[in-house]
Amino acid sequence: HIRDPASAEPVFEASKYGSLWPLPQKVQISEVSFKLTSSSFRIVDAKASSAGPSCSLLQSAYRRYYEYMFGSAKKQWWSKNNRRSDPSDLSELQVWITSPDSECDGYPSVTSDESCETVSCVYFGLLYFFLGLETFSQLVFEDEYGAKSINAAIINDFPRFQHRGILLDSSRHFLPIKVILANLETMAMNKFNVFHWHIVDDQSFPYLSRTFPQLSEQGAYHPYTHVYTPADVKMVIEFARLRGIRVIPEFDTPGHTQSWGKGQKDLLTPCYSGSKPSGSFGPVNPILNTTYDFMAQFFTEISTVFPDGYVHLGGDEVDFTCWKSNPDIQKFMEQQHFGDDYRKLESFYIQKCVSHQTSVCYLIVEMKKKKVSFDLKPDTVVHVWIGGGSDKEMSSVTAAGYTTILSAPWYLDYISYGQDWQKYYKVEPLNFEGTDEQKKLVIGGEACLWGEYVDATNLTPRLWPRASAVAERLWSAKDVTDIGDAFNRLSLHRCRMVERGIPAEPLFSSYCPHEYKGV
Amino acid sequence: HIRDPASAEPVFEASKYGSLWPLPQKVQISEVSFKLTSSSFRIVDAKASSAGPSCSLLQSAYRRYYEYMFGSAKKQWWSKNNRRSDPSDLSELQVWITSPDSECDGYPSVTSDESCETVSCVYFGLLYFFLGLETFSQLVFEDEYGAKSINAAIINDFPRFQHRGILLDSSRHFLPIKVILANLETMAMNKFNVFHWHIVDDQSFPYLSRTFPQLSEQGAYHPYTHVYTPADVKMVIEFARLRGIRVIPEFDTPGHTQSWGKGQKDLLTPCYSGSKPSGSFGPVNPILNTTYDFMAQFFTEISTVFPDGYVHLGGDEVDFTCWKSNPDIQKFMEQQHFGDDYRKLESFYIQKCVSHQTSVCYLIVEMKKKKVSFDLKPDTVVHVWIGGGSDKEMSSVTAAGYTTILSAPWYLDYISYGQDWQKYYKVEPLNFEGTDEQKKLVIGGEACLWGEYVDATNLTPRLWPRASAVAERLWSAKDVTDIGDAFNRLSLHRCRMVERGIPAEPLFSSYCPHEYKGV
Repeated sequence: HIRDPASAEPVFEASKYGSLWPLPQKVQISEVSFKLTSSSFRIVDAKASSAGPSCSLLQSAYRRYYEYMFGSAKKQWWSKNNRRSDPSDLSELQVWITSPDSECDGYPSVTSDESCETVSCVYFGLLYFFLGLETFSQLVFEDEYGAKSINAAIINDFPRFQHRGILLDSSRHFLPIKVILANLETMAMNKFNVFHWHIVDDQSFPYLSRTFPQLSEQGAYHPYTHVYTPADVKMVIEFARLRGIRVIPEFDTPGHTQSWGKGQKDLLTPCYSGSKPSGSFGPVNPILNTTYDFMAQFFTEISTVFPDGYVHLGGDEVDFTCWKSNPDIQKFMEQQHFGDDYRKLESFYIQKCVSHQTSVCYLIVEMKKKKVSFDLKPDTVVHVWIGGGSDKEMSSVTAAGYTTILSAPWYLDYISYGQDWQKYYKVEPLNFEGTDEQKKLVIGGEACLWGEYVDATNLTPRLWPRASAVAERLWSAKDVTDIGDAFNRLSLHRCRMVERGIPAEPLFSSYCPHEYKGV
Repeated sequence: HIRDPASAEPVFEASKYGSLWPLPQKVQISEVSFKLTSSSFRIVDAKASSAGPSCSLLQSAYRRYYEYMFGSAKKQWWSKNNRRSDPSDLSELQVWITSPDSECDGYPSVTSDESCETVSCVYFGLLYFFLGLETFSQLVFEDEYGAKSINAAIINDFPRFQHRGILLDSSRHFLPIKVILANLETMAMNKFNVFHWHIVDDQSFPYLSRTFPQLSEQGAYHPYTHVYTPADVKMVIEFARLRGIRVIPEFDTPGHTQSWGKGQKDLLTPCYSGSKPSGSFGPVNPILNTTYDFMAQFFTEISTVFPDGYVHLGGDEVDFTCWKSNPDIQKFMEQQHFGDDYRKLESFYIQKCVSHQTSVCYLIVEMKKKKVSFDLKPDTVVHVWIGGGSDKEMSSVTAAGYTTILSAPWYLDYISYGQDWQKYYKVEPLNFEGTDEQKKLVIGGEACLWGEYVDATNLTPRLWPRASAVAERLWSAKDVTDIGDAFNRLSLHRCRMVERGIPAEPLFSSYCPHEYKGV
C-alpha cells in the first residue's frame, strides 16, 4: 500500500567484514576459525601487562564483555582442571596494557591513546582497551551448531577523529537516569567517546546545584522527581568513565536561560515595554557584576563536579530584543561605545565568562552572522551547528584558527521517512574549502538529539542505529563509503544491539534471530 | 540550537473538559466534586442490569479499570462493615446493561451499540460499556491532597463513525504478541474498535495455517520463532474481544504475495524472459483452477479462525509486468477477449475470490487507476488508501454506492519533524464532493502503521499519541476542531497512557508527573 519509490528494497548479503561496526582501519579476517570454549573462556591480563586485577576499569569491562559474548550460552563453569582443550579452541583473550597503571583510576581525556595493534587487540591506551574488546566481541559468531566461534584476524585500529560525541537534551524533557545509562552503554558499543550533556535550557533546570539549590528548586519541572542529584551525576560520570566516555556538561548562556531566572532573581534581563518593565525576562543580564559573581561561583562548582577538562558554554541564539528594550543596557551600550551593535555586547559577555573559566571551553560561534572576531582563548573548541551552508561555516571557523567540531548535518531529532541513516553516513566532515592545516583543526563531531519531541518513551530507538552511521563516519577511514557494505554490516550490528537489550530500531524490512521483547 | 520557527511553542492550559479523549458528544462537568473512597471503591452491576457476575467480559473490565484508577493508590481493602462513608464520597459505580445477556460471550460487530446515557455511564450495548468505563476513568483526578476525586458530570456519548481502526503490519517485521497486546490495550483507551491485522505480505508469512502449514514453514522469517500459532491468534482475538475490538485479518492478494510462493508452488505466476521462465515470480496466477481451490480452502480456514464477519482481501498494487510476460496468461487474455487490458484480468481474479467468500470483504479498489466497475457484492467495504487526491477517490467510490473507509491521510508510518498529530486531527473525512447519501456510506477510517521501518523497538511510541488524533476525529462530533483545546486534553491523555505503562511519545517540551521508566 503506497510504497515509497525512492526506497528501493536493499537486499542483505553477508559482508566480508561480518558485523564489524565501525569498520577498523585495517582488518584481515582469515578463513581459519576457532571455537570459543564458552564453558571456560576467559579474558585475562597478559603477564607483561602494566595493569592487573586491582584495576576495576579492566575487570568490570572483562565481565561486561563476557556477558555480551556468552550471555545467551552460559553453561556450567568448568574449573581449570576439567578444562578440555583442543588445538582448534580459543580459550582466552589476553589483554596487554602498556600505558601507566595509574591511568586505571583516571578519566578519559582528549589525549587518551585509542590505538591498538596485534592479534589479541592490545591497547596502548588503558582507557580505551575496551574499544578493542568491543571489536573482539563483534568477531564472535555462532556456527551452524550454535557453537561460539571466531575467525583468526589481524586488526590494527585507531579512530580517524578523536572527538566522537552524542548530545542528549535533558531540559526539554527530563530523562530518567536509566535511559541515560542505557544510551551510554550503547555509545560504547559504537565507539562514541563523548557524552555532551545539554543538561539545562529555557524549559527546565534539572541540575541540583549545591551552591545554588534554588535553581532546580524553582526551575526544574518538579524539584523532587525531575532533578539530577549530585549522586545521579556521579553515577553518570562513573558509568561513562568505565566505558571510556568523557562527560562534557553544557550550561548554555546568555540565551536559553529562562529556567535559570526562576530561582536566581536579577540574573536575567528585565524586558521593557516602553518605559516600564513588561514582566518578562530575556537573556542573562550582561551589565551587572552580580551576573559575573554568580557565573564564577556556579562554574567553579561545575568544574569540581565534572572532572573533564572541558565545559560547553553554549552561546547560541541570543535574541537581542529584550536587551534593546532595557534602558540600563542602552546606557551601557553608550558607555562602552558599542553603538547599536548588540553582537558586541554578546561578545563582551562571552569573553568575560570564558576568562573566568578554569576548564577549556566549547562554544558555539555563529561566524556567518556575527562577523565579530572573538578573542577566545586559543584552546577554545568551536562547535559548528548552523545548518544550511555549514561548509562555509567550517571554512571560516578553521580559517580563524579554532579547533572545531561539527554537528550541523547530524541533527538526529529531524526525523523523516525512510533510511535516513544513509544521508548521515554520506557526510564528509572535511568537505569544505580550506588548507590541510585548517582541516587538521577539525577534531570530530557530534550527533545531536534535541529534546522537544524526545523523552524516555522514544529516545533510544530514535537515536540508534541512526547515530551508528555517525559513529563510523567519525571513526573509520575517509574512503569507507560503500553504502551497500555498510548496510550489510549495520543490519547485523543493529540486531546485536537488540540482543544486548537496546531497542535500536530497524533499518528496513527484515528480522533479527532474537527480536526485542519489550513494548 | 536551531529552533524550527514553524513549531511555535504551545502553552498548556487546563481545558474545561479536563483530560477527556476523545471528547464525548455531550459533556457537562459541574463544580461539585466527590472523593472516591479508594479503600473501598467498587464497580458493580446495577440491580436492574441484564448482565451479572457470570459475565466475564464485564468482570474483567471492572478489574482492569479499578487498576487503572487506583493502581497507584492501592491501600488496605476495607470490608463493607468498616467502610466509613461521607455524603461527599463516591463509593461505587453502578453499571446498568440493557442489552441481552447472551452478548456476554459474543464478539463485537458492526451493529454493536456504542451509545451511553445517564449519569453513571450506562451502556445499552453490553460490548461497549467499557467505553464508558474508560470515560469514567478519565474523569478521575487527584486533588491537592492526593485524594482520588471526580466532579459530578452528565455525559451522553456515542461515536460519529462506527469503524475506527488501527492497521498493524506483522509481515515487514515480525511483531511479538506482547507488543500487539499492549497496543490493543492502548486502542481501548482511545476507543478504537477495529484491529486491522495486515498479517502477511511479500516479505514474510508468519501466519501458521493448519490447512497449509508449509506456508509459514517456508515463508516465515523463521518457522519456529517468527510465527503466530493458532494459540497466539486465539489470544489476540480474545484479548481484543474483552476490549470491544474487532480483529479483521488481511490476506492481501493477488499482489504482495511473494512469501506465499515459498510454501505453495504453482500459486504465483512464473515470470518469463523471452520464451523461458526467468526464475522469478509475480502475483498470484489467476488462470489456474488450483489457485481458486487453494484460496477457497485457505479462506474457509480463515473464516473459522477469525470470528469477525469481515475479512480484508487487499487487492492493491498489482504489477502487471509478470502477467504480461507469461505465454499462458497471454493465451488466456485472448480467450477471455480482455485484449491488452490486464485490469480486466485483475478484476476477473478479484471477483472469483470474492464470490467464494462467506465473510464480507474489505477491498482496496483504486478507482482512479482502474476505471473498471467491479461487480462487487453490495456489502463489500471499499478501503480508500490512495494518497494525493483522496477526496476524488472518496467521491468516486461512494458515487458507485460502496460502503467506504478512509486511510489515505492517516499513514502514520510517514513520520516527519514536529507536531504532526495536528495534521491528522485536522482531516475531515467527509470533505469531498458528494450527496448526503454518498457521505452516509463512509463508515469510518483507519490509521495505518506500515512496517518497513517499524517493529517492537519503536512501534508503540510511533503510534501513540499520533493515532489518538485520529481516534478523536473518528469518534467526536464534526465541530470538535479547536486545536488548542485538543492540545490541552491530549497532553494529559498522553501522560495517562504513560502512567498506564504505555510508552506514548511526547507532544512537545513538558513533563509528566510519572515519567516512563523503561528505555
